[in-house]
Amino acid sequence: MIRLVIVEPEGSYNLGFISRLAKNFLVDELYIVNPHCDLEEAKKFSAKGLEYLEKAKIVNNFDEAIKDVELKIATSSIADIKGDILRKSIRPWELPRIIEGKKVALIFGRESVGLTREEIAKSDLLLFIPGNPEYPVLNLSHAVGIVLYEIWKSRGENKPVISGEAISLIDKYSRDLVNLIKSNEGDEAMYIALKRALIKGIGDEEEARTIIRLLRKLYIKLTRKIE
Amino acid sequence: MIRLVIVEPEGSYNLGFISRLAKNFLVDELYIVNPHCDLEEAKKFSAKGLEYLEKAKIVNNFDEAIKDVELKIATSSIADIKGDILRKSIRPWELPRIIEGKKVALIFGRESVGLTREEIAKSDLLLFIPGNPEYPVLNLSHAVGIVLYEIWKSRGENKPVISGEAISLIDKYSRDLVNLIKSNEGDEAMYIALKRALIKGIGDEEEARTIIRLLRKLYIKLTRKIE
Repeated sequence: MIRLVIVEPEGSYNLGFISRLAKNFLVDELYIVNPHCDLEEAKKFSAKGLEYLEKAKIVNNFDEAIKDVELKIATSSIADIKGDILRKSIRPWELPRIIEGKKVALIFGRESVGLTREEIAKSDLLLFIPGNPEYPVLNLSHAVGIVLYEIWKSRGENKPVISGEAISLIDKYSRDLVNLIKSNEGDEAMYIALKRALIKGIGDEEEARTIIRLLRKLYIKLTRKIE
Repeated sequence: MIRLVIVEPEGSYNLGFISRLAKNFLVDELYIVNPHCDLEEAKKFSAKGLEYLEKAKIVNNFDEAIKDVELKIATSSIADIKGDILRKSIRPWELPRIIEGKKVALIFGRESVGLTREEIAKSDLLLFIPGNPEYPVLNLSHAVGIVLYEIWKSRGENKPVISGEAISLIDKYSRDLVNLIKSNEGDEAMYIALKRALIKGIGDEEEARTIIRLLRKLYIKLTRKIE
């Protein structure tokens, strides 16, 4: 369960974009702490995430927003300062493993000054998104987007694998084609390279069928000429 | 070398945010094709990415923006439609391996209608950012942020897979071979499918050279027979 907590947002566009991102990546709850911007204006930027803005829970203070969650993750663009334990941080790609199966609050601070030290101290972990060391400061909603994307990724998108039949046809035609043009034993490498590249590179069954059709046509054209 | 290409952007805020992201993730070049928004207004959203907006190259058409790059990657929130080879797509996390060591254009389309089919066809690969299947449509600058973040993450972790020269030869021979056997316009799909599967699936330069040698031999054999 993921609760997005936005603390004292100052830009309406950011709040709008965040609602849209909540819909893009199916967040469970959106909490807004003491908004410092116009929620009506935000709607202009929410696109089909409007429902998230409309059903967002508006609370008065930080503590209310993090009640009833098992894990509180603060975010900051200021992290890992030598000698400052509070600023030691995790990276977005570590999140999925850490939050698995938990009720989690992902907490994002003000555009101007981020989260206070007190707010970070009340959280369990601090997350930092790496970037240009000279200027890693992301705009608020863009930081939200990256973190939500990284969590979404781990939900496991099972891209369809190509069928065993397609693999065996790719194997057959790769071998047949190479046999038609090979001049020495080393040419076996061409068959292996082509077959492997295709099996790794083909994205789904439809793409596989298209390529098999091409290989077959090449083969037929070549053998007809030879006969 | 990463060139960010933004095609006919309509929202000034997006262009501003994109300049900021270019600075956050150290993009090399920003090209803007025929902007449909106010560049002065965009500056308000660029923060410390202002320099990117000021030195952005403004061009009149798509072709000018993709000149002189070795690999052109189009992006879309409409991907993997059954029966449409052009819409087969890769995921952001596949990018780093594919682009390593190359001069790459990352191409993002209009907020309203994205990239045209013609623009996608002129590109080598199509990238899709996964999200809520009911509404995966990210705002333009948020899509840019996620793609740049994913590339930044992998900095230094990847060795070049295949050279730009190999990519252009794979492109050439895939097209030449399909031209020899194609019987109707729909066969264009075979060229796209073969080229993409090979670019994605080939593991290193040696494998690339082996496959190029095979494609060249097949081509020579077929054309000799035809003459």
